[in-house]
Amino acid sequence: MAEITNLDFDRQQRTGYPETVFGEGKTADQIIDIMRQFTQQGQTVLGTRITASKAKLVKRQLPNLCYFPIARCLVNGALPTEVTPTTIAIVTAGTSDLSVAEEAAVTAKVFGNQIERVYDVGVAGIHRLFAKLDAIRQAKVVIVAAGMDGAFASVVGGLVASPVIALPTSVGYGSSYHGLSALLTMLNSCAEGVTVVNIDNGFGAAYAASVMNHLKG
Amino acid sequence: MAEITNLDFDRQQRTGYPETVFGEGKTADQIIDIMRQFTQQGQTVLGTRITASKAKLVKRQLPNLCYFPIARCLVNGALPTEVTPTTIAIVTAGTSDLSVAEEAAVTAKVFGNQIERVYDVGVAGIHRLFAKLDAIRQAKVVIVAAGMDGAFASVVGGLVASPVIALPTSVGYGSSYHGLSALLTMLNSCAEGVTVVNIDNGFGAAYAASVMNHLKG
Amino acid sequence: MAEITNLDFDRQQRTGYPETVFGEGKTADQIIDIMRQFTQQGQTVLGTRITASKAKLVKRQLPNLCYFPIARCLVNGALPTEVTPTTIAIVTAGTSDLSVAEEAAVTAKVFGNQIERVYDVGVAGIHRLFAKLDAIRQAKVVIVAAGMDGAFASVVGGLVASPVIALPTSVGYGSSYHGLSALLTMLNSCAEGVTVVNIDNGFGAAYAASVMNHLKG
Amino acid sequence: MAEITNLDFDRQQRTGYPETVFGEGKTADQIIDIMRQFTQQGQTVLGTRITASKAKLVKRQLPNLCYFPIARCLVNGALPTEVTPTTIAIVTAGTSDLSVAEEAAVTAKVFGNQIERVYDVGVAGIHRLFAKLDAIRQAKVVIVAAGMDGAFASVVGGLVASPVIALPTSVGYGSSYHGLSALLTMLNSCAEGVTVVNIDNGFGAAYAASVMNHLKG
Amino acid sequence: MAEITNLDFDRQQRTGYPETVFGEGKTADQIIDIMRQFTQQGQTVLGTRITASKAKLVKRQLPNLCYFPIARCLVNGALPTEVTPTTIAIVTAGTSDLSVAEEAAVTAKVFGNQIERVYDVGVAGIHRLFAKLDAIRQAKVVIVAAGMDGAFASVVGGLVASPVIALPTSVGYGSSYHGLSALLTMLNSCAEGVTVVNIDNGFGAAYAASVMNHLKG
Amino acid sequence: MAEITNLDFDRQQRTGYPETVFGEGKTADQIIDIMRQFTQQGQTVLGTRITASKAKLVKRQLPNLCYFPIARCLVNGALPTEVTPTTIAIVTAGTSDLSVAEEAAVTAKVFGNQIERVYDVGVAGIHRLFAKLDAIRQAKVVIVAAGMDGAFASVVGGLVASPVIALPTSVGYGSSYHGLSALLTMLNSCAEGVTVVNIDNGFGAAYAASVMNHLKG
Amino acid sequence: MAEITNLDFDRQQRTGYPETVFGEGKTADQIIDIMRQFTQQGQTVLGTRITASKAKLVKRQLPNLCYFPIARCLVNGALPTEVTPTTIAIVTAGTSDLSVAEEAAVTAKVFGNQIERVYDVGVAGIHRLFAKLDAIRQAKVVIVAAGMDGAFASVVGGLVASPVIALPTSVGYGSSYHGLSALLTMLNSCAEGVTVVNIDNGFGAAYAASVMNHLKG
Amino acid sequence: MAEITNLDFDRQQRTGYPETVFGEGKTADQIIDIMRQFTQQGQTVLGTRITASKAKLVKRQLPNLCYFPIARCLVNGALPTEVTPTTIAIVTAGTSDLSVAEEAAVTAKVFGNQIERVYDVGVAGIHRLFAKLDAIRQAKVVIVAAGMDGAFASVVGGLVASPVIALPTSVGYGSSYHGLSALLTMLNSCAEGVTVVNIDNGFGAAYAASVMNHLKG
Repeated sequence: MAEITNLDFDRQQRTGYPETVFGEGKTADQIIDIMRQFTQQGQTVLGTRITASKAKLVKRQLPNLCYFPIARCLVNGALPTEVTPTTIAIVTAGTSDLSVAEEAAVTAKVFGNQIERVYDVGVAGIHRLFAKLDAIRQAKVVIVAAGMDGAFASVVGGLVASPVIALPTSVGYGSSYHGLSALLTMLNSCAEGVTVVNIDNGFGAAYAASVMNHLKG
Repeated sequence: MAEITNLDFDRQQRTGYPETVFGEGKTADQIIDIMRQFTQQGQTVLGTRITASKAKLVKRQLPNLCYFPIARCLVNGALPTEVTPTTIAIVTAGTSDLSVAEEAAVTAKVFGNQIERVYDVGVAGIHRLFAKLDAIRQAKVVIVAAGMDGAFASVVGGLVASPVIALPTSVGYGSSYHGLSALLTMLNSCAEGVTVVNIDNGFGAAYAASVMNHLKG
Repeated sequence: MAEITNLDFDRQQRTGYPETVFGEGKTADQIIDIMRQFTQQGQTVLGTRITASKAKLVKRQLPNLCYFPIARCLVNGALPTEVTPTTIAIVTAGTSDLSVAEEAAVTAKVFGNQIERVYDVGVAGIHRLFAKLDAIRQAKVVIVAAGMDGAFASVVGGLVASPVIALPTSVGYGSSYHGLSALLTMLNSCAEGVTVVNIDNGFGAAYAASVMNHLKG
Repeated sequence: MAEITNLDFDRQQRTGYPETVFGEGKTADQIIDIMRQFTQQGQTVLGTRITASKAKLVKRQLPNLCYFPIARCLVNGALPTEVTPTTIAIVTAGTSDLSVAEEAAVTAKVFGNQIERVYDVGVAGIHRLFAKLDAIRQAKVVIVAAGMDGAFASVVGGLVASPVIALPTSVGYGSSYHGLSALLTMLNSCAEGVTVVNIDNGFGAAYAASVMNHLKG
Repeated sequence: MAEITNLDFDRQQRTGYPETVFGEGKTADQIIDIMRQFTQQGQTVLGTRITASKAKLVKRQLPNLCYFPIARCLVNGALPTEVTPTTIAIVTAGTSDLSVAEEAAVTAKVFGNQIERVYDVGVAGIHRLFAKLDAIRQAKVVIVAAGMDGAFASVVGGLVASPVIALPTSVGYGSSYHGLSALLTMLNSCAEGVTVVNIDNGFGAAYAASVMNHLKG
Repeated sequence: MAEITNLDFDRQQRTGYPETVFGEGKTADQIIDIMRQFTQQGQTVLGTRITASKAKLVKRQLPNLCYFPIARCLVNGALPTEVTPTTIAIVTAGTSDLSVAEEAAVTAKVFGNQIERVYDVGVAGIHRLFAKLDAIRQAKVVIVAAGMDGAFASVVGGLVASPVIALPTSVGYGSSYHGLSALLTMLNSCAEGVTVVNIDNGFGAAYAASVMNHLKG
Repeated sequence: MAEITNLDFDRQQRTGYPETVFGEGKTADQIIDIMRQFTQQGQTVLGTRITASKAKLVKRQLPNLCYFPIARCLVNGALPTEVTPTTIAIVTAGTSDLSVAEEAAVTAKVFGNQIERVYDVGVAGIHRLFAKLDAIRQAKVVIVAAGMDGAFASVVGGLVASPVIALPTSVGYGSSYHGLSALLTMLNSCAEGVTVVNIDNGFGAAYAASVMNHLKG
Repeated sequence: MAEITNLDFDRQQRTGYPETVFGEGKTADQIIDIMRQFTQQGQTVLGTRITASKAKLVKRQLPNLCYFPIARCLVNGALPTEVTPTTIAIVTAGTSDLSVAEEAAVTAKVFGNQIERVYDVGVAGIHRLFAKLDAIRQAKVVIVAAGMDGAFASVVGGLVASPVIALPTSVGYGSSYHGLSALLTMLNSCAEGVTVVNIDNGFGAAYAASVMNHLKG
């Protein structure tokens, strides 16, 4: 396989961001091969969507990698010590959205951002959100992860002035259609300043948030 | 046509509710024919989805009918003077949902309910909702009409203890898909006690609300 | 995890309803943790969508919990002895809808309602429905669970005067599209007074029914 | 155009059925051209989906044609005097389905069938259906046209022993999705012996019914 | 469970057809219970959608049942010896549709029909179809099972004069969408006299075919 | 507008193909402006999707343009006199697909191809196709335009050895879903060597066919 | 109406952004009423989705308003003279996307941003994009409007380091499904840092871009 | 089964192409049976969609077969030694599309084509594509396999003059909808000369490409 895969070792230098490997559909062997090569080049690489069982196989070969089980992420080095002075807030409606939110959190950290987790403050019981509103408003960028009705992104979007990245999750059942309900709601948000990423794309939300968080005046 | 249509003159006695005529797809002549027969029987009849131009043609023949232009409803008699002591609140997110909300309002009135309109208090600018919350909480039943993201039904549902009937509207564009976005959001509402009716079905929401509002302890 | 989950111990006092835990996607450990905390606070908690194998693990740690296998519900206490004088009828078309109907039944009981089960009286063989019609008509609220063609909700809705909550189930195959067929049929019901909840949402149907069943005159 | 269109003058002899022309998307001139040629060959031809305004233009050139305005059909000759001893029942839930039902009725008559119209006996108010049940049961084949919830086909299918052709109509709004709701319901009918044709395909339903009605023992 | 299930022992007498049990979603114990009761009543019962492993468990308790593995059907008695003089042809495009076609075949036999299997004669290589055309044309009713492009039903429908029941199957991948492609094609068939049943509904196709095959002149 | 539009005058030289203008959504003035510029550059330009009324306005300003009303195409010069020795066959199932087929025909001619029209030879009445099969088989490339069931592309694809471009059309109603039924059928064609273009994309089919027809051995 | 609409005169002070009025579905009278009130309060208001004919009626009453016909926007005052030092680039694939792009452009200007239009540089003919790449890379935020295949957003996203807001447009036909094709493509963009707004939501894209463009370091 | 399956031994002679067996849904025994018969006839046969575990079972009985694990293909003979002088380029955006691309590659080789693999040169990092552009442009036919946003087919299509077969893959998650996003994008490609095959249909893409690659001038 190694001769087929076209690894992009110049990426970190070209874009300022480490390379990432999307682990879904890749075998443990493929992941090991890719991560070993980046490690040998002295480059940071972030692996996403890596199940606990795959991670175990990978770590047998590359024991220095760090695995984040809720986020299902593997990183081949220490998180950056130099972080942004400004913050990305990651807000979730319920605990079921945790895995996607943590994928965003780990990604944002690997990309050198300071983050603020505000979890399980969803629509039913809006008093929990208001209790955390100051923390959310202080962030430079806000990621809102929500499944089911996805209404939470509109509510948060109506309360803050920063850019809000709505992150639909596939949490739900029946007519949630694996995140479609949340996705459509977020695309139609009445609150302004909200943009949307793909369902369960915690990585993409964090990448975009990091780009915004690093914007200069 | 009259010999084909199978009018149900026993309905009012059987169900306690006046007959209603769904005007969409019916010609002015068909509506005139049906409304004249019920009027001759001394029975109330409510016509819904009747455009202003059709209503004009109908009123030329039946000048005593009352037309509600925003609600697009025609009624062949006075609204009931005896109304419920309890109230149905009809809440909308924006002014665009007005036509559907008014269809619900006129229907509820024809069915003998006291109503409370709380319009244009939507998610973006949630302070407007909180200002009206007491009025909404005093209602026995709450109808929430919302298009676009439909998130408003979840927000209201999380704040009141009464039955909430979520009424998705086709207001919006693009990926609102003519109310699908709002419908899915409402079906997946994280707030409990919320049930849903068809898109733009102001009549159906009011009918169900009226049944609930007339429930005895 | 415990420090992440934001448990709502004031809910029972605030809303009059016990807290509920949606078990799908939660591990046995997460469920044990949540249920133990509510039990320690002396509060009732209802767990839904909990598979038999998860329930077994939970009961090893919390043997006093009561598990309802068909309904897939766990309750941490005795059902309320004080129940409503009025009844919620739960009607199903076939035996395949039983699991969802029982989720509704257990939920309604936990919320203090008297219930009446009318199962397997579906459309093909309508004489079975007519034989049970009196029992259904005496209920203050009616839940109709049906998959496949979902026509049963319209039939029942056309025969009773109480509020009818249509509960589509994912029973079926092919173009039933996991409950979409039943959901659309129910949203378009020609019978009035029918409102709809999400596919397989037995809990939500019962919650809404309980709110209506507790309404005072 | 005449040299492009490939008219099938042998059809009546080959299949025993007259040719039919689908008028939607054809100009009045195209329809005139086709109908004139068949008339000159002494063959019956049935035109469907022909609007009143197109029919007017056609009849100016071919005044002997007979136009059925509700069915939107044009026929170039007298209906057959020799008809089947057995009957096709055409049943509708409401008056809104009339146009599609009449397309079926005219088609069935052109194809030499005796028909029985049973209109406006829909689900809400099922007593109207039971009053006509004997007439429906005496038919050799039953067509059930219904829009909105489409539940009516299941109800009728559960009450008769003959083949039932379910004919979904695009009547409705919102989540009826122009007949999709009725179509899905009918495909998932719990009643057996039900087969389905395309939305609004009154012609196709009548064609299939005619084939069945002409079957010999 | 036995007290919940509402078995319909009068069905065979009322409709002339044996009862059938839809096995999907039922446990082996439920199937055993139902089949035992019908057997004790001396009535034939047909079980469909019963996997080989479930059938094995059922047969341990009820060894006299007959299992058809390709059709996934269980029958509790001998097939009827008195069969129709006329035939139902069951035609498939490829071998992948075999399981659904055999469900239809077994059902048709249990219902007392003579059948003619014409398998694997699909569109690519149309000469195979023409070689079997006489056999198909001699049938009183034709069932055409096809997945993927579903075009086969139109082709056969254009070549025979009998009623054609199009039976879409979920065979395929990608944009076949589990039979949706075949279903839509069949509903839009240019060939007349074609009606459609649900995806993979071999039982329903055979039931409807049997009703037609038993029609008297 | 002229300064906004970024006309590509080098295209003909770069690709060997004349520029084309997609007329839908453009005003007559915009079309006039673009066509005048290309004409002034001495370059051929093909306008597609231009209604008769727009074409009339354009021709008032640019009377030398040639308009093809069925194809809805405008060309600013003579068709090429030098054409390929090999042929593109354009085959349609019915006459309703004519407009799309003619868009393909005009496009193919503008691109210097010899074409062979084989129209109205569809599935119901397959003998008409066999009568023209030799002509179709002699073509180097075959375009098959079909709406409704789209089955025709599979039938033709199963009978020829050349590349077949399936061109779904939006002809139909109800569950044809504006060409979706035909599109899905064609994508799932059991016949090999079939590739597909967008619904109603006569231009695109002809462009691809022209590229193939110009391929050298 | 005035007593129903709940105008938000504090918005400009609260959020720093002028109020906007979504003109679709509002009558000219409603627009006049709202715009007059804001004008009387001395506040800027931006009206979007206002057709030329409505704008004409509005300007008869409020002649000082400025109308942008391609963008279909009305503004009640001069554009801000104080603009951001940094730029929002608005990039389109073709000229058909112009109306949506101009809605974004006018909105961005009303909100005080410097903008850079880069129009008609789409995928087919990628050399046109490379010629403008420097201008695009200098922008702080990039909006990419594209319909049809929507691929352009991925291409641009892969070439710039700034936040990219993908703006799908409903330009296209057939299986573009009014922008769904572009929307899905953009949500699945392989390029990172891309977020998405609703189909044709030029206003929303510009609002979000403005929030990002005003971010401080 | 052998007597049911209708093997087409004349195919190779009739069409010049070896028979192929679609392995999905077939048991190892069915595959063995079919492959043995073709081998005994001395004919080449290609099996596709055969999992590694099925292949292992087949090879136990037919050890001479050759299995390609990434492509999931089985061939019963040596690849043809006589190949086309012209080339089919197979281009992929990422490594995740490898399995589908290899199915195309093996198929193309079995059909006697020279191929050129250009893998992992996707949109994000377009410089990798430009580095390989010459190789792609030299091919007579180009297959572009891409999942997720599918934009890659448009990009390649805009850069080459040969026929491009767009091959959407089901790679992705969330709103990629198992290849629907890529499929729609490709059908709406702005680049001309692009035609499309079914999602993951590597075999079909290669078959069509082979037909084109064998075209004579």
